[in-house]
Amino acid sequence: MTKKTFEIEMKVRDYECDTQGIVNNANYLHYTEVTRHEFMESLGISFKECHGLGIDPVVSRADLHYKTSLTGGDPFLSSLTVERKGAKLIFHHTIRRKSDGAVCCDAWIEIAVLVNGKLSRGDYFDEKMKDYIV
Amino acid sequence: MTKKTFEIEMKVRDYECDTQGIVNNANYLHYTEVTRHEFMESLGISFKECHGLGIDPVVSRADLHYKTSLTGGDPFLSSLTVERKGAKLIFHHTIRRKSDGAVCCDAWIEIAVLVNGKLSRGDYFDEKMKDYIV
Amino acid sequence: MTKKTFEIEMKVRDYECDTQGIVNNANYLHYTEVTRHEFMESLGISFKECHGLGIDPVVSRADLHYKTSLTGGDPFLSSLTVERKGAKLIFHHTIRRKSDGAVCCDAWIEIAVLVNGKLSRGDYFDEKMKDYIV
Amino acid sequence: MTKKTFEIEMKVRDYECDTQGIVNNANYLHYTEVTRHEFMESLGISFKECHGLGIDPVVSRADLHYKTSLTGGDPFLSSLTVERKGAKLIFHHTIRRKSDGAVCCDAWIEIAVLVNGKLSRGDYFDEKMKDYIV
Repeated sequence: MTKKTFEIEMKVRDYECDTQGIVNNANYLHYTEVTRHEFMESLGISFKECHGLGIDPVVSRADLHYKTSLTGGDPFLSSLTVERKGAKLIFHHTIRRKSDGAVCCDAWIEIAVLVNGKLSRGDYFDEKMKDYIV
Repeated sequence: MTKKTFEIEMKVRDYECDTQGIVNNANYLHYTEVTRHEFMESLGISFKECHGLGIDPVVSRADLHYKTSLTGGDPFLSSLTVERKGAKLIFHHTIRRKSDGAVCCDAWIEIAVLVNGKLSRGDYFDEKMKDYIV
Repeated sequence: MTKKTFEIEMKVRDYECDTQGIVNNANYLHYTEVTRHEFMESLGISFKECHGLGIDPVVSRADLHYKTSLTGGDPFLSSLTVERKGAKLIFHHTIRRKSDGAVCCDAWIEIAVLVNGKLSRGDYFDEKMKDYIV
Repeated sequence: MTKKTFEIEMKVRDYECDTQGIVNNANYLHYTEVTRHEFMESLGISFKECHGLGIDPVVSRADLHYKTSLTGGDPFLSSLTVERKGAKLIFHHTIRRKSDGAVCCDAWIEIAVLVNGKLSRGDYFDEKMKDYIV
C-alpha cells in the first residue's frame, strides 16, 4: 500500500541564493517547513492555533541529503509523506526541480510534539492525518 | 552638545551575501536590529523581558541609504545615536567597513512603543537611555 | 494618467515571524525584492541573466513605512508602480493584507544600475518597462 | 588520540527566533556554516578566495539532532572536529548553551569538494587542516 503524498509548487527567491549562485543549504529546511505547514493547513490544522492551544510540534532531527542545486528563479515541487514511529512523527520530504524532475534534496524530518511544554505522542495529529498515516 | 554613540563590531557571515557576492539589503536591517538590542542590553533592557512585560517596541519606519557594499567575511562597525521625537524614538545607525572606514549604510529607524498592544510614549525607555537622549 | 500597477499574491511563511508573533521587518524588504524580480520576469528580464551580462541593479535607498503587522499564514497582495527619476528608477511598493485590504507596508525603493561595476542610467530597463514608466 | 577541537562563541540574534520564541531550526545550519568558515579562516583559507580559485566545498548531507532550544540573546559555544572519509570531509559540530553547557544541537555535516564544478577529493584542504584531521 503506497503512502499518500502531499505536494506544492514553489519557486526559488533570488535572496535565498548565496555567493556560489545556488540556494543556501539552510533554505531547504525552510522549504520543508513551509510544506509541512501547508500540509497541516490543508487538513485544517493551523500552526498558529496549535501554539495558542499549547501544542507545539518541534523538530527533533533533520537529515538532509543534497543532490542537485537549485538556482535563482527555479520552480520546484516540494512533496511529503508521513509516518508514525513510536512517539515521533516522521516526514519524508522530496524537493524536485520542475524543469526536469531532478531530485534536489531528500529529507527526513523527525517531529516531537510538546503539549504544554511536555513531550507527548500528539495523538491530536494522528486523527487529522489519518488519510496519510498508513 | 554631541550625542553619545554606542558601537559594536560585527563581521559579515557568508550566507548573508547573495548571488551578486554582496550582503543582501535586508540584512542591513538585521544588523541595525542586533545593534539596537545590544544597546538596550548594555542599559539593562532585555527585548525578551520587555515582551513579557507587554512592552513591545516596533519599527514604524526604516529609511536606509546604501553607499558601499560589504562582502563575505568583512568586519564592520555598527554604531547608533538616539533621539526623542514626540511619541517616537529615532535611532540613527551608521555601518562602516572596518578596513577603511567607508560608510556602507546610513539608516534612520523610527520606533513606536506598544504597551499592551496600544501606542504609548514609552517613557520607560527615556529613563533607561538618559545618557544617550540629549 | 495613472501608472500601471503590477501585483502578485504571496503568503507569510511562519519562519518569517519573530518572537513578537509578527513578520520581522527585514522580510518586507525581501517581499519587495521578490515582487520586483517577478515584475522583471513578467517583462522578460531575468535577474540571473542581467548579472551574467554585467548589468546589476542595486538598491541605493529603501524607505519603508510599517502600518499593520502581518502574522503567520496571512495571504497578502504585493503591488508596485515604477518611475524614472534622473539616473535612478524608483519603485513604489504597497503590501496589503488580503483579508481586509489593510495596508501593511508602503515602501519606496530607489534603484541604481551598475553596468560592469559602473553607475549607468540603465536605459536597458526603460525599454523593457515602457508600459509602466509613464 | 583525541581530535583537536575548534570553538567559537556566538550569541543568538532575536530575529533568529520564531513565533515559538526559540531559534528556528534552519538557523542552526547557519551557525554551523559560520563556524566552519571561521575555522577555515583560522587556517588561512578564505571561502571567497576558494570560490575565486574554482574550489567550492558544498554540503552533501546535513544531519542535525536538536536537544535543547536556544532563545533570544543566549550566548552559546559552537565547536567542531573534522575527519576525512573517502572523498568526503565530515564535520562534527556541537552547539552548547554557555550558561549551563547544555547541548542544543549535534550535527554531522558532510562536505564534497567541487573543483571547477567537478567532484574532487579536495586534497587542498587536507594539507591546511592537517592538525585537525587525525
